[in-house]
Amino acid sequence: MEKKVVLAYSGGLDTSVAIQWLKDQGYEVIACCLDVGEGKDLDFVQAKALKVGASKSYVIDAKEEFANDYALIALQSHALYEGKYPLVSALSRPLIAKKLVEVAEKENAQAVAHGCTGKGNDQVRFEVSIAALNPSLKVIAPVRDWQWSREEEIEYAKEKGIPVPIKLDSPYSIDQNLWGRSNECGILENPWIAPPEDAYDLTSSIEDSPDTADTIEIEFVEGVPVALDGNKYNLGELIAQLNVLAGKHGVGRIDHVENRLVGIKSREVYECPGAMTLLKAHKELEDITLVKEVAHFKPVVEKKMTELIYEGLWFSPLKKGLDAFLQETQKFVNGTVRVKLFKGHCIVEGRKSPNSLYNEKLATYTKEDEYDHESAVGFIKVWGLPTKVASMIGEKEKISL
Amino acid sequence: MEKKVVLAYSGGLDTSVAIQWLKDQGYEVIACCLDVGEGKDLDFVQAKALKVGASKSYVIDAKEEFANDYALIALQSHALYEGKYPLVSALSRPLIAKKLVEVAEKENAQAVAHGCTGKGNDQVRFEVSIAALNPSLKVIAPVRDWQWSREEEIEYAKEKGIPVPIKLDSPYSIDQNLWGRSNECGILENPWIAPPEDAYDLTSSIEDSPDTADTIEIEFVEGVPVALDGNKYNLGELIAQLNVLAGKHGVGRIDHVENRLVGIKSREVYECPGAMTLLKAHKELEDITLVKEVAHFKPVVEKKMTELIYEGLWFSPLKKGLDAFLQETQKFVNGTVRVKLFKGHCIVEGRKSPNSLYNEKLATYTKEDEYDHESAVGFIKVWGLPTKVASMIGEKEKISL
Amino acid sequence: MEKKVVLAYSGGLDTSVAIQWLKDQGYEVIACCLDVGEGKDLDFVQAKALKVGASKSYVIDAKEEFANDYALIALQSHALYEGKYPLVSALSRPLIAKKLVEVAEKENAQAVAHGCTGKGNDQVRFEVSIAALNPSLKVIAPVRDWQWSREEEIEYAKEKGIPVPIKLDSPYSIDQNLWGRSNECGILENPWIAPPEDAYDLTSSIEDSPDTADTIEIEFVEGVPVALDGNKYNLGELIAQLNVLAGKHGVGRIDHVENRLVGIKSREVYECPGAMTLLKAHKELEDITLVKEVAHFKPVVEKKMTELIYEGLWFSPLKKGLDAFLQETQKFVNGTVRVKLFKGHCIVEGRKSPNSLYNEKLATYTKEDEYDHESAVGFIKVWGLPTKVASMIGEKEKISL
Amino acid sequence: MEKKVVLAYSGGLDTSVAIQWLKDQGYEVIACCLDVGEGKDLDFVQAKALKVGASKSYVIDAKEEFANDYALIALQSHALYEGKYPLVSALSRPLIAKKLVEVAEKENAQAVAHGCTGKGNDQVRFEVSIAALNPSLKVIAPVRDWQWSREEEIEYAKEKGIPVPIKLDSPYSIDQNLWGRSNECGILENPWIAPPEDAYDLTSSIEDSPDTADTIEIEFVEGVPVALDGNKYNLGELIAQLNVLAGKHGVGRIDHVENRLVGIKSREVYECPGAMTLLKAHKELEDITLVKEVAHFKPVVEKKMTELIYEGLWFSPLKKGLDAFLQETQKFVNGTVRVKLFKGHCIVEGRKSPNSLYNEKLATYTKEDEYDHESAVGFIKVWGLPTKVASMIGEKEKISL
Repeated sequence: MEKKVVLAYSGGLDTSVAIQWLKDQGYEVIACCLDVGEGKDLDFVQAKALKVGASKSYVIDAKEEFANDYALIALQSHALYEGKYPLVSALSRPLIAKKLVEVAEKENAQAVAHGCTGKGNDQVRFEVSIAALNPSLKVIAPVRDWQWSREEEIEYAKEKGIPVPIKLDSPYSIDQNLWGRSNECGILENPWIAPPEDAYDLTSSIEDSPDTADTIEIEFVEGVPVALDGNKYNLGELIAQLNVLAGKHGVGRIDHVENRLVGIKSREVYECPGAMTLLKAHKELEDITLVKEVAHFKPVVEKKMTELIYEGLWFSPLKKGLDAFLQETQKFVNGTVRVKLFKGHCIVEGRKSPNSLYNEKLATYTKEDEYDHESAVGFIKVWGLPTKVASMIGEKEKISL
Repeated sequence: MEKKVVLAYSGGLDTSVAIQWLKDQGYEVIACCLDVGEGKDLDFVQAKALKVGASKSYVIDAKEEFANDYALIALQSHALYEGKYPLVSALSRPLIAKKLVEVAEKENAQAVAHGCTGKGNDQVRFEVSIAALNPSLKVIAPVRDWQWSREEEIEYAKEKGIPVPIKLDSPYSIDQNLWGRSNECGILENPWIAPPEDAYDLTSSIEDSPDTADTIEIEFVEGVPVALDGNKYNLGELIAQLNVLAGKHGVGRIDHVENRLVGIKSREVYECPGAMTLLKAHKELEDITLVKEVAHFKPVVEKKMTELIYEGLWFSPLKKGLDAFLQETQKFVNGTVRVKLFKGHCIVEGRKSPNSLYNEKLATYTKEDEYDHESAVGFIKVWGLPTKVASMIGEKEKISL
Repeated sequence: MEKKVVLAYSGGLDTSVAIQWLKDQGYEVIACCLDVGEGKDLDFVQAKALKVGASKSYVIDAKEEFANDYALIALQSHALYEGKYPLVSALSRPLIAKKLVEVAEKENAQAVAHGCTGKGNDQVRFEVSIAALNPSLKVIAPVRDWQWSREEEIEYAKEKGIPVPIKLDSPYSIDQNLWGRSNECGILENPWIAPPEDAYDLTSSIEDSPDTADTIEIEFVEGVPVALDGNKYNLGELIAQLNVLAGKHGVGRIDHVENRLVGIKSREVYECPGAMTLLKAHKELEDITLVKEVAHFKPVVEKKMTELIYEGLWFSPLKKGLDAFLQETQKFVNGTVRVKLFKGHCIVEGRKSPNSLYNEKLATYTKEDEYDHESAVGFIKVWGLPTKVASMIGEKEKISL
Repeated sequence: MEKKVVLAYSGGLDTSVAIQWLKDQGYEVIACCLDVGEGKDLDFVQAKALKVGASKSYVIDAKEEFANDYALIALQSHALYEGKYPLVSALSRPLIAKKLVEVAEKENAQAVAHGCTGKGNDQVRFEVSIAALNPSLKVIAPVRDWQWSREEEIEYAKEKGIPVPIKLDSPYSIDQNLWGRSNECGILENPWIAPPEDAYDLTSSIEDSPDTADTIEIEFVEGVPVALDGNKYNLGELIAQLNVLAGKHGVGRIDHVENRLVGIKSREVYECPGAMTLLKAHKELEDITLVKEVAHFKPVVEKKMTELIYEGLWFSPLKKGLDAFLQETQKFVNGTVRVKLFKGHCIVEGRKSPNSLYNEKLATYTKEDEYDHESAVGFIKVWGLPTKVASMIGEKEKISL
């Protein structure tokens, strides 16, 4: 009996060749293409899979699921890996894995396959996610397995009648979804050289961005962005809108030499106009709505959540615990943030909230002041006491508090 | 016998009045003005102290000491309180406390005094620092003690012949040093309103910044910035240079609603053109020179260092421990960072180091690739094993690793 | 109109005198005594309050509420302040504060009062909790306010007809509830001297403990201890049972020099036979049921939870977030732990769980072994790669991975 | 030309067979046996290596180096992996790796070899350490490579004339050094069954331990134990002495189900009488000598240090940074701790230090009290202010601080 495999299919050369290669291994191949907001022509992709040998070809619109169940957690976690990378591909991989498993279970497939190589993070994210969701499924990584050179791959493709794109000489390796676009390889591998303009696609350069700012208001309900300038949107739509608007102003270019999970440093260029705008706005709303103790501990949880997602452990039990903490903190993150988009910046100019803990009567230096100034004297004595005692002991002096 | 007090003197109304007020309490008052880079006319300040009643008037140039012993630690710690505030005043307070104690010990004074109110962080920083350095010194806070309204203070000043500045109606409360400028009060107390242009002094607005970028190279030796575009500078000079250059391009404006140590949220506006440029460049150099495990744990130490400085515990024993960690990490932070200053941005375009751990032959996807792709398969199995076992147990399924 | 105050009443001299003292200040005093498991004669306490001047006297049995809503969180958090103190008084203070506020609101009182002095942690815990629950209530601390010597207090008591206990010369200051007993003062203030036997009450000395062990089985459901040796108990009863049984075997004596929140170190002696037995058993059950990533991050949350409780922030929003994380981790903490109680030890001899992640077929070195030994080779290469690259760069050697 | 390999040789069957097996692969084999305190007959081991085919046989006494450079860091870090395991084997592996590399460099060997299997932590520790110290050395793991069953191994041994121990049927797998003894396998693989008495070797059972306590005084200088009952010892000797004395009293048995680095849980039994006594005494001395802020942050560094050592990253740059922090904290850890050894306990009964920050005049409740009670009122207001404001905002009530 023939074995079945569900392949994460992108429409590109690698996964097209993988269809044939998997058939060579004796598999019936079911292609599965997810739309997480990369703006592909899905009909074309669906048809191409069948054309190059797949027995079935799924296309799944997962944009809102991606936005609500994946990107939102990254937003509320202020997820910036190593302080810089907003987890673009790291967020879509677990969702794609989930869909592959769902299709595999529906189709009674014995295996799933992905097009990752052996030196990136994505292979880890796919395989750990799949093992978490259905540990009995076999996982195949054709590109990692065949270890062909580019020339060998093209030769195989021609031999098998797989269309080889004319413009194969793009130097870059690109992945994209609603939360952003990542780019690596080629000239980017030299970290002393500035990324050339053609490495970017979603954003204007600062030089080319408009000379007039756009100022927008983003409304949040319990930590979820729900409206732009008073107009309600589904989260996926809202992010897409912001990608266009903030992208036009050159917001969200990131150039990062990062530590991959698989032990190497790599230089990556990201564009995340919507994500960076939302991350900044959300943080500023938290600044007025989270109590100090939460504001100071949440970054510890955020760092762990970010690393966990980067490291492929989305479906680990730890994620559920961190998320439970996170959701508890978002209950009061309601309000509106005014953001000026201009020359590559998303500047928060104002923030307000029905749950604001900023209290002008406490903060002011005017006559309205309701703060008890004398308490400070007692506070300072107690606060500094350990340091003072350490100093006195060090000096072998008598105590006189 | 008359008692002596050493007063941290700024030349402004509050500390001028404080000289008289302390004399009313029976003190001989020694004024002490520190230059930490705020650009005051120090001769004027020195003379004024004597004019309004001080028996002696010290002026101390502490710019290089501030740069090397205080600002540098903030730089190497990537110190941004609550992710935003680069610790401007929080850095100068312990140094001023140290100088006050030195002068007090030299002059055999029994007390030191500062001009802080009862609701800010600076009173804590002064008093804990002084207690740490000489726990036998009494600390007086005239402004906190007298609790006068502005009108009462002016009346007292006029009565005592203390000059009252004509332009007393500045709505802002400002502090400045080499590491930046902070501004609070007035219209800034409304966090929904954008800071007006007159709240800024060190930086151009993006709108008014040049249409042509400046690109500079900053060289670091063991984590210390030592040269700009190949020219060596003392650290204090280098920061001052960068303040002018990056300030011209509008770099380093920060608008922050922060949690004060004394329990309230306050809205502050900072300008730190040199600091923000150096912080960004230094982080990017670390990105290529720190090994992954150090890069992932250093932020934990940085967060603690930042909070400790913000909270006035500079002279606490914990600072020494954190600093020992920090210095160990800086040994390999050598190299050059190329930064483009443009329209409010300091964009790192390139970084290189003799100690770079970025290895093109490992990172590349070309034929030069020296990475062992097959190791990844084993790594993933082991990395995902806990998650997989948890999944299998959850599912009560048989193991088949 | 007379003002009303609700006083946390213990029946001791301090709070009895406080009733009169509060009446002197013009208050009608409502006494409120909580039973959190200290084993007092509550009828006597209730009557005494009225006798010494209270207008009403509440006695509230809060043992199960204390066990389920307070002690359980300490158990599941493995709460040991500074690695040693299981938070005895720190747990009851927020509950007592809650009940005081409830009674105050029911009785339309304007104030609540507690009997703490000015140098302990409990005043902070009471006052922050009360401010969190009803910020409009005034809080009075008679003992902290009157600042009498012991002799002055006794003289006042005699004058007002308040009974003074004959055996007033106990050198110790004791607090007790279901989760344990704390003791300080007297000879204990010398940290070089071993606590004398009369400092202990709930536990046998090791010397006097039985020469025959008791071995018990404790059953947990979702992290909650529900049965001892197969017999189901309410949590309060179960803890009380264990206090007797483990106390007989000398389990749970703790001698701790700790850092108080109010800036001083103090030496405390605790007895927590039931708590220490449960803490140890619960941890061992987690060792087989929590996945590695959770097991390694939970201690971070535990440390924060423990410090937060110690520092009086029970009703802070942060507690809710930490608790949400905690509850998520407890879902799989089901099973049975076998504990040997003997000569001051509670030794976990065995643990089993339907959710055990310990897998003998993976762990074994026998022929049953299902672990994939070859994966380790790949894992090690990737795991050690950053260290290896750092070494190679340090050595300026050629790469040959 | 023949290749040379340096093999970590224990004298047991596995590494004896490995000598022959490596010769089969074309290697000249140099045996290297380290004495880290396991109490082997080293002359016998040295001779046996030559007898079974090694060309040279090194025996190196590394006990004091192990004590001073490895065990001491574990002590000062309070290293207990997952709160329980004091890092016995994890400490010796990097030292053995270091000696192997030294011998290999001296002998111009191209490879080193160890006797670990493919599912333990030790293979990782050896291989990452070797890669860190000399990345050009090849590492061979014969036992992991040959994958023989026990029977196949014995058959090979007999064939090659390697002596097979008569008592080969020990169910346990044991490793031992000065810091303790670890035991796994056999009946221990069932975590519900108590470890049988024959699983232990260094410690008496509680039942068999003396009915009379020994009370000892341990003196520390800058965190290093230097004397027992007033007699000075080298650290290695001191640990060895304590192993005997505390072992006699049954101190230091640990039964732990732990998460291995390689992804599985395993049940291990440890005996660490000296280590556990020193760990407890050292912590108690820190309790009186470390200032609060250090005492509360050091555990964060300790946890990372412990995990790093467990995970084989001893020679990682991160270790140096953590150690720099650690050494800074130990400067004031001077003094004497009195410990009662009795019935499996090491009870700290007293601690004293010239650097003690415990201050009886601050801690006392007697007339000697020098604490400023009124400061507490101000402290509490400021400390609880964020919580209070959160409560007020939640309640939409007017402020009245």
